[in-house]
Formats: sequence, C-alpha cells, structure tokens
Amino acid sequence: MSASKEIELGQEFKPKFDDNGLITAIAQDAQTSEILMVAYMNDEALAKTIELGRAVFYSRSRQKLWAKGEESGHVQTVHDILTDCDQDCLILKVSVDSGQCHVGYQSCFYRKLQSDSENQLEFVAEPVYDPNKAYGK
Amino acid sequence: MSASKEIELGQEFKPKFDDNGLITAIAQDAQTSEILMVAYMNDEALAKTIELGRAVFYSRSRQKLWAKGEESGHVQTVHDILTDCDQDCLILKVSVDSGQCHVGYQSCFYRKLQSDSENQLEFVAEPVYDPNKAYGK
Repeated sequence: MSASKEIELGQEFKPKFDDNGLITAIAQDAQTSEILMVAYMNDEALAKTIELGRAVFYSRSRQKLWAKGEESGHVQTVHDILTDCDQDCLILKVSVDSGQCHVGYQSCFYRKLQSDSENQLEFVAEPVYDPNKAYGK
Repeated sequence: MSASKEIELGQEFKPKFDDNGLITAIAQDAQTSEILMVAYMNDEALAKTIELGRAVFYSRSRQKLWAKGEESGHVQTVHDILTDCDQDCLILKVSVDSGQCHVGYQSCFYRKLQSDSENQLEFVAEPVYDPNKAYGK
C-alpha cells in the first residue's frame, strides 16, 4: 500500500499536524450531533485529551494548552475521536452540560447567513447562560 | 460595541480568512447532521458557493477552486451557511447523494480511535460507492 493509501485505509492513527504543529478539532455533541465548536490541538493537547477523556485544546491566541472548561466549568467529556481520510482533521464526539460557547450559546454556530444575502447574518439560537457570571467578569 | 463584540454579536457577515486567505468549512448533512468533510475556502470559493448554492472549495494541494462534485458528480447542495463566534469557521448545511468522500465512504470520517488506544483506528462505516469508477481511474 502506498504511503497515502496507508494513511487513508490503514488502521494506524497518524494525525497530520500543520506547519504550526496544529490539527483542526471539531467538537460535536455525541447525542444530538450538533457541532459545538472548532478549535485546534497540538500533539500534547491531543495526548492529554486521549489520556483524560476530556477535551484539551491549544489556544492560538494564548499560545498554551487550554483545558476546555478550566475557567467556565463547561468541560467536554470525550467519547470518541474520529479522523478523516487524510488524517488532518479530528472530530471529538463529546457530551457536555449547557453552554459551550464563551458568548453564552450552546454552540458557537449561533448565526447563519440570511437567504439571498451575502453579508447579513441572522441569529438561529438563544443564549443558554450568562457568560459574565461563568467567566467572572 | 467593540470590534470583537461586533464580530461576535453583530449581524454583519465578516468571514475571517487566515494568513493564507483561507477559512475552514465543514460540510454537514442538513438532514442527518453527519459531518461529511472539512475543506477550505478562499473569498472567491465562498462567493461562488453563495452564488451557486453548491459547495465550491479551494484546493490547497492543487491551488485552485474546486467545485465539489465536478469530477465525481457528488455535488453538495448548500441550504445554509453558519459561522461561529469569531467568524473564522463555517458550517455548510448540505444535501448530498451517496458517497461524498473520495475514498468511497459517505463521510470522510469513517474511522475512529479505538478505545484504550493511542494509535489504532477502527472502521466505523462501510464504503457506499466505488471511487475507481466515479473518478475514472
């Protein structure tokens, strides 16, 4: 099997980190299949996630590991980790409590592009918690 | 409202492309909520997607626009485009025929990490078409 076929069809997990050492990770609700957020992992964050069974990401802005929920309490319990054909992206199947997005919504994807518009969004969700309380601001 | 609050809470669609001019786009089945694939868009691909109502990505390997299905026939009809809090990621809610992944599966995410393993994958799906026929190889 060629190297690329091995990546696509093999059973060895060989996550492909990008030039910055990161891989995209999508947190998806294991029960509802709602996509909650998209973040990034370096190899250490991925190893920690596997070890702990809870999502640990790498914060690009803060340039350090970020255990999801360390400040807000909204941890993500990881049930499964899926990878795609070329192994450069991950899905975390997670269970969560309410309020995963720091803005106050269950999912970070709380807006959609309006029909027949190129630049106007509409809200498709309601806030589920008060981020000012959760983050103590 | 501050600039970052405007991005998070405003109704103006201001997709944030990265240093390479790309934004991550997740194609999610509008009916089943299964995540089908993850790809990238430049501003032209996004504009084309909005214009046509069909997914058009930017291929990083081929460095050109890639109308999903142009070769395989597996087009993605786009019903909604969602963006996340900081507008650096998109979800395309799509409807599709069978077989979205070039390897032959409905979703690119056809393998998961085995329980209690750090490096062994197991298959969680069956192929739904023969890619050798679809791509004429």
